[in-house]
Amino acid sequence: MAKVDGASEEQSALIFLGTGCSGGVPKAQCLIRPSNPPCPVCSQSLSVKPEHNPNYRCNTSLLIDYCQTNGDHNYILIDVGKTFREQVLRWFTYYKIRRVDCVLLTHEHADAVHGLDDMCSMQQSGLVNDASQIPVYATQECMDSALSRFPYLRKSEHKQGRVDWKIIEENFEKPFVASGLQVYPLPVMHGEDYVALGFLFGNKCRVAYVSDVSQFPSTTEDGE
Amino acid sequence: MAKVDGASEEQSALIFLGTGCSGGVPKAQCLIRPSNPPCPVCSQSLSVKPEHNPNYRCNTSLLIDYCQTNGDHNYILIDVGKTFREQVLRWFTYYKIRRVDCVLLTHEHADAVHGLDDMCSMQQSGLVNDASQIPVYATQECMDSALSRFPYLRKSEHKQGRVDWKIIEENFEKPFVASGLQVYPLPVMHGEDYVALGFLFGNKCRVAYVSDVSQFPSTTEDGE
Repeated sequence: MAKVDGASEEQSALIFLGTGCSGGVPKAQCLIRPSNPPCPVCSQSLSVKPEHNPNYRCNTSLLIDYCQTNGDHNYILIDVGKTFREQVLRWFTYYKIRRVDCVLLTHEHADAVHGLDDMCSMQQSGLVNDASQIPVYATQECMDSALSRFPYLRKSEHKQGRVDWKIIEENFEKPFVASGLQVYPLPVMHGEDYVALGFLFGNKCRVAYVSDVSQFPSTTEDGE
Repeated sequence: MAKVDGASEEQSALIFLGTGCSGGVPKAQCLIRPSNPPCPVCSQSLSVKPEHNPNYRCNTSLLIDYCQTNGDHNYILIDVGKTFREQVLRWFTYYKIRRVDCVLLTHEHADAVHGLDDMCSMQQSGLVNDASQIPVYATQECMDSALSRFPYLRKSEHKQGRVDWKIIEENFEKPFVASGLQVYPLPVMHGEDYVALGFLFGNKCRVAYVSDVSQFPSTTEDGE
């Protein structure tokens, strides 16, 4: 939605590509069957430019613009939901983002993974990283579910333009390094019996990003 | 993309909700890594209002605004692809379309069915027809494939807001009636060994809509 830190080219930054619900904002029904008076959020959302518009909200997603110690930037995307194409058109153009280096998935619901198809189209055209297969970090369960819907995203050594799946271990005790950034998975409850992940990262500034949560397990709440 | 017939409330009309490729137009890479000079199609597509903009093309989809003999209108949607939400925001608002009565699917690729999730969210909020389950016409193969990706769209008599799947028989010899409109399925080749459907409909004007085709089998080409 907005870049909150690091206008300088020598700093890292967080770009909130979306902060909306699964169906996004505006809600179609607010526009097509407006209340009286009309809902101000939805009615204004189509007429205001993206950079001045807090009311056009795509699926929750964060782009980490990670500036390494050598000054090189890596672009780490958390979640790639149903509205990914809209988010690229609105924010990648505005912030002049030219590629994605890797993806972290919080869980396998449509608002977190259904843009994988569009992302791979971009990848084939060279927009997503320079490697032939983009690393996507997810739990085994998340990967299995995504592959049941997108079987053509299965890793294949003989096929370019697909996904290099990286499994996040289920005990969640170890950090992993994604495009140079050390990341700790933060298991949280999303609904009663469904575990989703948040992610903890950053050295100068410590950031915990938890996008879809109903309850924090004590091990996550009390942890580092 | 545009309404080509029937501005009158007493006429039927065709509204082309999308005429673009699977990834849609504009292409992200044209905007983020522009050529010199920039591609005029993509560079203009974000700054022009929908109704004056032939260069913002969503997934191929047709909305039939069918005016019956008693003057009542039914809204029959052919395909509900990845960009369905954008199409609702751009065209349902412009043409004041308040609902969809039924859906016909040409095939099960992402650019034809991946908007089902968003469509059902609209349905739950009362935007898509008044019945509790929206009729979706598809071949058995198309339905099975869609359900493998969206298992929560399985028909259930105990659950509102889902899909009432109507199977189009594989011999394609019989027409069916969808929201009052008689429709003939037109099998066509989409690639070498993949059958997709077009649809033939209309009494005053005979319309054949074939959106994704590489070759016409002689039985379809020579038929009615």
